[in-house]
Amino acid sequence: MDVFDAIKTRRSIRKYSNKPVEEEKISKILEAARLSPSAANRQPWKFIVVRDEETKRKLVPACHNQSWMAEAPVIIVACALPSEAWVRSDGEEYWKVDVAIAMQDLILEAWELGLGTCWIGSFREEEVKRILGIPDEVRVVALTPLGYPAEEKGPVTRRKPLEEITSYNHW
Amino acid sequence: MDVFDAIKTRRSIRKYSNKPVEEEKISKILEAARLSPSAANRQPWKFIVVRDEETKRKLVPACHNQSWMAEAPVIIVACALPSEAWVRSDGEEYWKVDVAIAMQDLILEAWELGLGTCWIGSFREEEVKRILGIPDEVRVVALTPLGYPAEEKGPVTRRKPLEEITSYNHW
Repeated sequence: MDVFDAIKTRRSIRKYSNKPVEEEKISKILEAARLSPSAANRQPWKFIVVRDEETKRKLVPACHNQSWMAEAPVIIVACALPSEAWVRSDGEEYWKVDVAIAMQDLILEAWELGLGTCWIGSFREEEVKRILGIPDEVRVVALTPLGYPAEEKGPVTRRKPLEEITSYNHW
Repeated sequence: MDVFDAIKTRRSIRKYSNKPVEEEKISKILEAARLSPSAANRQPWKFIVVRDEETKRKLVPACHNQSWMAEAPVIIVACALPSEAWVRSDGEEYWKVDVAIAMQDLILEAWELGLGTCWIGSFREEEVKRILGIPDEVRVVALTPLGYPAEEKGPVTRRKPLEEITSYNHW
């Protein structure tokens, strides 16, 4: 699938088939994340692949009861390691940017393989960390379910017009 | 170009041809950014396309004298609008994540079109904002040059092994 087609047709999937996700596909999706660029190539990330049913169910209340998440056969939890990340000389942190890049690569690759995902930023971080045994110093940036879509959606809609989000040579 | 190939072969390009970038390609690259997902679909972003030679030259010292940047016919400046962005109920901000997603989509689409880019996070934000007339409340997340590569690079190297950056069901 072309990059542009993937970007244009990818949608947030909130209904999943219970068809299992093949091992090879999970590996390729994680490989896409692994190959991603990061500030100073620090790769300050870790991805937890949750397939255990009980653990998936525990994550639902930590994500404000988005129960459709757990219908997907897999949930991926994208973590940042701020202590390993590049920091700009003025103190500005880039670990959110780094993990977002890798997660978006993972999500586009999933879509290429026929798999749906959905960026989830609405969660209680401490609860997610407790459930998964994530160390204190690590941050959870986002989660996504991963599985075969059980809903059909057309291409992306509801975006600001290009003129509103671009300018030339000056703000 | 397949998504996976784009992710695998994309490299940070630091040498650019002076061949101009076609209007249609710039439009398609910006369209890729425009179509990107963002938390609560807030799209808290703006992309400044700098083609003016003098403005490009002024950006070099603001980016710690990375003079190769200005060889590219275009520099794109990715800005965040925190006041328009979704914020989690615990106060966690997601504008860096949102802009990183859109910038990565832009970068992968550029690569599909034969164009090089390079994520730049090392810059003096206030100076970049002054040069481009960016309002106080807006944040600059990253810049990238954009142009035809004048260097050949093999696929991505130097990444942590998959075992180090993944785990199953638990940290």
